[in-house]
Amino acid sequence: MTNFEFKNPTKIIFGKNTIEKLTTEIPSEAKILLLYGGGSIKKNGIYEQVKTALNNFDVVEFGGIPANPEYAILMQALEVIKTEKITFLLAVGGGSVIDGTKFLSSAALFDGDTPWDILANSIPTIVGMQFGTVLTLPATGSEMNSGAVITRAETKEKRGMGGPGLFPLFSILDPQVVKSIPKRQLANGITDAFMHVLEQYMTYPAGAYLQDRFAESILQTLIEIAPKILTDPTDHIAASNFMWSCTMALNGLIQKGVPTDWAVHAIGHELTALFGIDHARTLAIIAPSHYAYNFESKKEKLAQYAERVWQITEGTIDEKAKAGITKTTVFFNDLGISTKLSEYTDAYDGTAALISKRFTERGWLELGEHKTLTPNDVEKIVEMAY
Amino acid sequence: MTNFEFKNPTKIIFGKNTIEKLTTEIPSEAKILLLYGGGSIKKNGIYEQVKTALNNFDVVEFGGIPANPEYAILMQALEVIKTEKITFLLAVGGGSVIDGTKFLSSAALFDGDTPWDILANSIPTIVGMQFGTVLTLPATGSEMNSGAVITRAETKEKRGMGGPGLFPLFSILDPQVVKSIPKRQLANGITDAFMHVLEQYMTYPAGAYLQDRFAESILQTLIEIAPKILTDPTDHIAASNFMWSCTMALNGLIQKGVPTDWAVHAIGHELTALFGIDHARTLAIIAPSHYAYNFESKKEKLAQYAERVWQITEGTIDEKAKAGITKTTVFFNDLGISTKLSEYTDAYDGTAALISKRFTERGWLELGEHKTLTPNDVEKIVEMAY
Repeated sequence: MTNFEFKNPTKIIFGKNTIEKLTTEIPSEAKILLLYGGGSIKKNGIYEQVKTALNNFDVVEFGGIPANPEYAILMQALEVIKTEKITFLLAVGGGSVIDGTKFLSSAALFDGDTPWDILANSIPTIVGMQFGTVLTLPATGSEMNSGAVITRAETKEKRGMGGPGLFPLFSILDPQVVKSIPKRQLANGITDAFMHVLEQYMTYPAGAYLQDRFAESILQTLIEIAPKILTDPTDHIAASNFMWSCTMALNGLIQKGVPTDWAVHAIGHELTALFGIDHARTLAIIAPSHYAYNFESKKEKLAQYAERVWQITEGTIDEKAKAGITKTTVFFNDLGISTKLSEYTDAYDGTAALISKRFTERGWLELGEHKTLTPNDVEKIVEMAY
Repeated sequence: MTNFEFKNPTKIIFGKNTIEKLTTEIPSEAKILLLYGGGSIKKNGIYEQVKTALNNFDVVEFGGIPANPEYAILMQALEVIKTEKITFLLAVGGGSVIDGTKFLSSAALFDGDTPWDILANSIPTIVGMQFGTVLTLPATGSEMNSGAVITRAETKEKRGMGGPGLFPLFSILDPQVVKSIPKRQLANGITDAFMHVLEQYMTYPAGAYLQDRFAESILQTLIEIAPKILTDPTDHIAASNFMWSCTMALNGLIQKGVPTDWAVHAIGHELTALFGIDHARTLAIIAPSHYAYNFESKKEKLAQYAERVWQITEGTIDEKAKAGITKTTVFFNDLGISTKLSEYTDAYDGTAALISKRFTERGWLELGEHKTLTPNDVEKIVEMAY
């Protein structure tokens, strides 16, 4: 176990009919910008619940934040924040709306040339404008962490940002929202959370017994609830465990004291930027090839995963490790998610070389838990995923 | 899974040689009261490290806080806080020193008649004097929660207190402290953490799959490291996992959304107050009898525990559940901890009736996760534990 620091001050309000608690959680003098996405919250009743809870507040609205929150659109919201003298941001949505809100939290108090610098120059946000969230789509864990990923269509880029100032003040997690989420999004959410765990787990044994077991706990829970939630999204127990697993998968806890990988995300982001493939699906495309390509350095953890998460107790380390990769692929496929790029686009030719070139240009020359994966390795991994 | 709220703002600084970080974590203008116990920190080098880190601060010392922090002694420390105009408390010790510091944090800002009211009337602490901790004995989890238990020798009482104002600002967890802890205390620490988990887990199935698995993760980790740490407390991996498991066992996470019991603690506290038996040992005395007495209402969880934590896959629910109790008893015994009161004192006769009477007098008439255990039940449980 390596040295670490852990602090996560976000207040989680979890359970049925908790959206009404907005009334008491938001500072009473706040002028609120209510941020949301494509408007699904107006169909499923969440918008009504939020507006009722905000009855006594001064509220301005900004809808239309797209999946993979777009820089140009967020810059319009930033204009509203300034014009309307907003003091509190309320994100009602999934990871995209929350990530977009985090960017705005940072940009609202940023005094550099252009807010793009926060992303381009990886400037950490020490203090941001206060914000809370109402989660409508369990997946990214953004509701209880201090990171965000922003997309810029103009340059086909996805960039990360973060900092201690970007933890939500509170996040409201009502599992009842799950019942109105389309099946495709539920499958994405399960895959996203599953891959968040794997990025922090599928490395090499580092003597972090407890963190390993926590990671395996989340994976096992996701495997247990996945068929239930896809069959019956009104199943409250399944929905609750799905929602809490997604949060715990990326709230910082399981990454403390262990090596982490995150190469799958780095590569996956490019597939979203290039082809518009859903974020979670890009992870499912890259992961199996990444694990197969880096088999020697990951096989001990792959075997541990196969044994503890998939109950594969027979065979050598190599056999178990390979079975672990197969099980992962089958799990994604059973969710209706293909793990090959060619099933998402016919125009995949040249993708591997293009991503490799971009990584070289950006100076991303050392990826993975050992910092040994070069753009050349990335090219081979993407080719394996065609 | 039931509705819950979770917020834990304590900053954890974990790892080798982290005590030096005190220098930057304590507010620079603070006037510090350094609190510690019987002086073992002066023998194992921790005191030196702390004093070096506090070199540029104004520091007053108060040593001699005993195991089961004693109200009368703490009242002396409170006098020092007032006389010396202390603004920051630094606990360097185990759960007793940290709990005592929490009482002082609350009492320093309390404006009622007497600080005993905080305990006697269960007054929650909303704002306390800021404090940090350097943990020297993994066990109670007090370093990352907002609760404390205080003893009053005069009336042979142990009382709990808590509130959102009692989270440490930071806690420094250097696993290297483990190597200088006596074997008896290590066994106590493992038992204490193990029982903290069981109090939040050994109830009835409540559809909290993730919390169950997290709880089982901590139990499995404690079982894995116990023999290692007792054989070689310099084993850094074992020490790290021991320390982090103790913290995670009682930082609020695994109790969220699930029923909890805590009857073992309520009864165990009486054994400490009456006979001075180490806290952890009182839990080991009561738990097996408590689980046997409440077998019908706990057997499903006992069986799940036996299966997942102890790999007992054969047999009926009842058989597995019974095996789970036996395994727990053997685990404590293997740590050198007896589970029968008569092995700690010859004067046990009448203890059950006395504790039952006390519970009746205090109005503690409904214990356990179902709130169905009466003082009469408590009497029978204690008798079974003779």
